[in-house]
Amino acid sequence: MRQFIVLGHEAPTSPEFSLSDLAGGAGRLDVLCRCVNAGLFLSHGIREDTRVHLVLNDEYTVRFDGSTAKRLYPNERAVASRIKGALESTADAIGHQPAEVSPGVELYRMDFESTLESVARDGTIIELHEEGESLIEAEPPADPVFVLSDHQEFTDSEAAVLADTAERRLRVGPEILHADQTMTVVHNWLDTAGYRRY
Amino acid sequence: MRQFIVLGHEAPTSPEFSLSDLAGGAGRLDVLCRCVNAGLFLSHGIREDTRVHLVLNDEYTVRFDGSTAKRLYPNERAVASRIKGALESTADAIGHQPAEVSPGVELYRMDFESTLESVARDGTIIELHEEGESLIEAEPPADPVFVLSDHQEFTDSEAAVLADTAERRLRVGPEILHADQTMTVVHNWLDTAGYRRY
Repeated sequence: MRQFIVLGHEAPTSPEFSLSDLAGGAGRLDVLCRCVNAGLFLSHGIREDTRVHLVLNDEYTVRFDGSTAKRLYPNERAVASRIKGALESTADAIGHQPAEVSPGVELYRMDFESTLESVARDGTIIELHEEGESLIEAEPPADPVFVLSDHQEFTDSEAAVLADTAERRLRVGPEILHADQTMTVVHNWLDTAGYRRY
Repeated sequence: MRQFIVLGHEAPTSPEFSLSDLAGGAGRLDVLCRCVNAGLFLSHGIREDTRVHLVLNDEYTVRFDGSTAKRLYPNERAVASRIKGALESTADAIGHQPAEVSPGVELYRMDFESTLESVARDGTIIELHEEGESLIEAEPPADPVFVLSDHQEFTDSEAAVLADTAERRLRVGPEILHADQTMTVVHNWLDTAGYRRY
């Protein structure tokens, strides 16, 4: 399985945000919505072997699972609407039991560290970082879990948690890409693993 | 320079569409907006050597130029707002003279074939197609011009025009990606050209 954890530093934790102001009042939720798109969608299809975990302001984690997602569409507004729905169900997320929001979408009352620990059991944690090893020179691991930040850098405490957990550090560079663009490149890297480079 | 031509088969040709219904009433304009994002944006920067040409319903072409774009943001709504602004200026686009809409954004009264001919003078036309040569095995050309379709296939007449003009046919596969995801992979391919594959 391929998994992505994306940290939304200013993301909303209540559903009182406007779907028409995702890049403003909703704390750059547009960035996280694009990450769900990049993580799960193919042309006319969905990546069934992929999960995207959005960590909202280090308080909640919304998990999108490609194997069970239904009626999910790649545009920012549609994904944001699912996140809004998830945030209407916070009372149902108790301990590590998620609230089931819609097919393939669950809300967990879990911060970054808890989410990372939980996901780490099933895979190899990889930090995507501009100073990591070039993707092109790296062999893909089995069951990778990529950790990315939204438009902001990792905080010092996030970076410390990651440094303790991440087994590898990779970069897509030389250009620094947005989180969703990075995810698209990573998927293609995994899709074409084993191909010969010209 | 890197250029992308993206065909929007159901895209609006008048500004009377809702920014809150891009994936519905606006004829999947969300797809074209994501292509502008993938084409022009880096993390905290813009690709100054890139142009994205959106062909709207084979009637108008809106050109986004990374070297002159200003106050452009990557979210779908913001890009759609620029396209709406462009479509308010159709009366100013006469012959091949564009209407200047906002910094880096111009509207041309040009269909796909005219746009392709005009752009072909400055580069090598490449069709991105699932049956093309694998990117990984291909050497990038100088000044590539990539031609992509939105959520629909190329029509027979578009395919015929392309077959006459395209010098190469490439694929990002094995998975079939959305147009914007394909553009992100292509940029990364060009960015890392010359890197060794592990």
